[in-house]
Amino acid sequence: MRILLVGAGGVGGSVAAIAARRDFVEHLVVADSDPARARAVVERVGDPRFVAVRLDATDADGVAAALAEHGCTALLNATDPRFVMPLFRACLLARVTYLDMAMSMSVPHPTSPYTQPGVLLGDEQFALADEFAAAGVLALVGMGVEPGLSDVFARYAADHLFSRIDELGVRDGSDLRVEGRGFAPPFSIWTLIEECLNPPVVWERDRGWFTTEPFSEPEVFDFPGGIGPLECVNVEHEEVLLMPRWIDARRVTFKYGLGSHVIGVLRTLHELGLSSTVPVQVGGVSVSPREVVAACLPDPATLGPTMSGRTCAGLWVSGTGVDGGPRQVYLHHIVDNEWSMREYGCQAVVWQTAVNPVVALELLATGVWSGRGVLGPEAFDAVPFLDLLTSYGSPWGMREGG
Amino acid sequence: MRILLVGAGGVGGSVAAIAARRDFVEHLVVADSDPARARAVVERVGDPRFVAVRLDATDADGVAAALAEHGCTALLNATDPRFVMPLFRACLLARVTYLDMAMSMSVPHPTSPYTQPGVLLGDEQFALADEFAAAGVLALVGMGVEPGLSDVFARYAADHLFSRIDELGVRDGSDLRVEGRGFAPPFSIWTLIEECLNPPVVWERDRGWFTTEPFSEPEVFDFPGGIGPLECVNVEHEEVLLMPRWIDARRVTFKYGLGSHVIGVLRTLHELGLSSTVPVQVGGVSVSPREVVAACLPDPATLGPTMSGRTCAGLWVSGTGVDGGPRQVYLHHIVDNEWSMREYGCQAVVWQTAVNPVVALELLATGVWSGRGVLGPEAFDAVPFLDLLTSYGSPWGMREGG
Repeated sequence: MRILLVGAGGVGGSVAAIAARRDFVEHLVVADSDPARARAVVERVGDPRFVAVRLDATDADGVAAALAEHGCTALLNATDPRFVMPLFRACLLARVTYLDMAMSMSVPHPTSPYTQPGVLLGDEQFALADEFAAAGVLALVGMGVEPGLSDVFARYAADHLFSRIDELGVRDGSDLRVEGRGFAPPFSIWTLIEECLNPPVVWERDRGWFTTEPFSEPEVFDFPGGIGPLECVNVEHEEVLLMPRWIDARRVTFKYGLGSHVIGVLRTLHELGLSSTVPVQVGGVSVSPREVVAACLPDPATLGPTMSGRTCAGLWVSGTGVDGGPRQVYLHHIVDNEWSMREYGCQAVVWQTAVNPVVALELLATGVWSGRGVLGPEAFDAVPFLDLLTSYGSPWGMREGG
Repeated sequence: MRILLVGAGGVGGSVAAIAARRDFVEHLVVADSDPARARAVVERVGDPRFVAVRLDATDADGVAAALAEHGCTALLNATDPRFVMPLFRACLLARVTYLDMAMSMSVPHPTSPYTQPGVLLGDEQFALADEFAAAGVLALVGMGVEPGLSDVFARYAADHLFSRIDELGVRDGSDLRVEGRGFAPPFSIWTLIEECLNPPVVWERDRGWFTTEPFSEPEVFDFPGGIGPLECVNVEHEEVLLMPRWIDARRVTFKYGLGSHVIGVLRTLHELGLSSTVPVQVGGVSVSPREVVAACLPDPATLGPTMSGRTCAGLWVSGTGVDGGPRQVYLHHIVDNEWSMREYGCQAVVWQTAVNPVVALELLATGVWSGRGVLGPEAFDAVPFLDLLTSYGSPWGMREGG
């Protein structure tokens, strides 16, 4: 398979490092608006199948030209969510398979942001679903770890573990810490603020999608692998928009195990107006407070060597088991930063995000997975995905009892 | 008395509003680097004794010229602490009485900031004490409410209430709140951060001055006047540097009743590097994170009308009473924002700061207080000050038992 990887940040770099070990990759073009960043990724991989190019993700003609020039049949979007739509549209025009790990952005409801949804995550993409289907083009959206592997778990639970599902509850937590830093999020603070301060969305069979106040429905969830109990709160996340389209459940939620410390930090940033992206005047210049917050923190891509601990992505499912009795399970995937640094030179969170689209590309390249239209990971058979993920050296797990 | 008031911010504006009601003021020049701000203060007062001028506080020649032109015998510095030294030196050269409400700035110890003092608050001013004394010029430093009235209380306690003082503990707290804002400090966040994150300084008879970690020695102090209990922590403040020079005590502390919420906010700003004044690069521009924090919050000078509650400044004293038995008292001064807004159109915190230097100027103008050299408020007789403050319509109080 010939692939155009757009975005040579932390996740893009990990995608390259993982893909370099797989034979299905014939040619991989690493593209970034900063050509030095793309070149650095390719040099680190040191594989003749890989090349670096400069590419502006918003330039449809440039993207089409790169796809054509390199004969790519798939584009993997590893940029931030602002660039989803131009890349998504470019693939429709070029009739090339599109994959991403985060979906098109939401817009809060103009008058009732904390009760009613406005524009939902992925709405702009699903609006083009018929056009993708008619053109025979596949967009596999939300194919990272969360969304992504979490959605694969949902399909697995529905097909193999439950006869009736009460709740599909994504629960994400980690005990990652950075030497000498009380607060150093392992991925972009910009995204963390966006996820956590946007109105969380919840789906219920009887109500459809609705929103709540930030940090709603706090609960303590006990994460496996030695991570332990963490305070989790509702967060806006793609799974809540994806799962109900393919899986029958009474309720779908996403709760992030931020822990009380990080929740406190985010509340403070919000309270002081520092989470805002609306520029403020400071002296003679105009800056976005959120960008200033990001500039004060270390670049997450540089944290790997000073970080330790594990990150856990997973799906808690409750309902009725295939035997007819009540059942709860927690399907999960844990990456230890020490392992991912040693094996791939990649920090755990970005490695865990990056491995899943590579597995998906391999399933598409080998024809195990195929489809047309705009599809989430739960639209495909989960078993070959979970088996291939395990064969990548990164097994998943299941805790009976929730 | 002919007075040059430098700084037409919240405190300067309140000084003008209070001074306008006093006959001892013959002429008051309101000076600011922003002439519109100075003019606005003078227009609000509407008193023919008051004039507005443009003045750069760092321009020694300009300050000397303004003092000479208006025949001023006293300069009241109502600017921020960065301008203390140029104005202080200008008064020495011009042989004019100098007053301020905050002293020259500290510099943390280069290697042991949280145990050893570096350059202390006021050190730069006290270094010129002999020159002031030799020139027959008085600098009355730290003559606001805290420092200021708190130091007057210390002198009063030593002269009239105690035969032996164990601890002089300034304790400051308020129940001020701003309509619709969870966090809106009633004075500059820049100063709040500076005070609270600099290493707190403590004085003990056997150790002299030493520093601690920020937010050290938390205690809950029950403030009078309906304010109630608040979490207080050590903060760097001028009283700790002033009181031991004139009053015999075993220990001198300053604890600020920030409450756990504000302490949490300040800790977070510190943890994220947002308290820093060292510029960071954001896009193409360079900004001080602390200035960005300030720009996100409402201007404290504009908060008066939406604020409610009371602010309490005071001194807790423990030791042996004049009758030889153990004694504890809390000497205090409370301003209700509703009262200060109605009576003076001034927010409570700036009014409480501003009234004290006006009282001191009146005592100097009438010859009740006199001196030469660099002196704190505790170098003067406390009784006439406290009586005059009461006659300004703002009585002080004493709670027996601490």
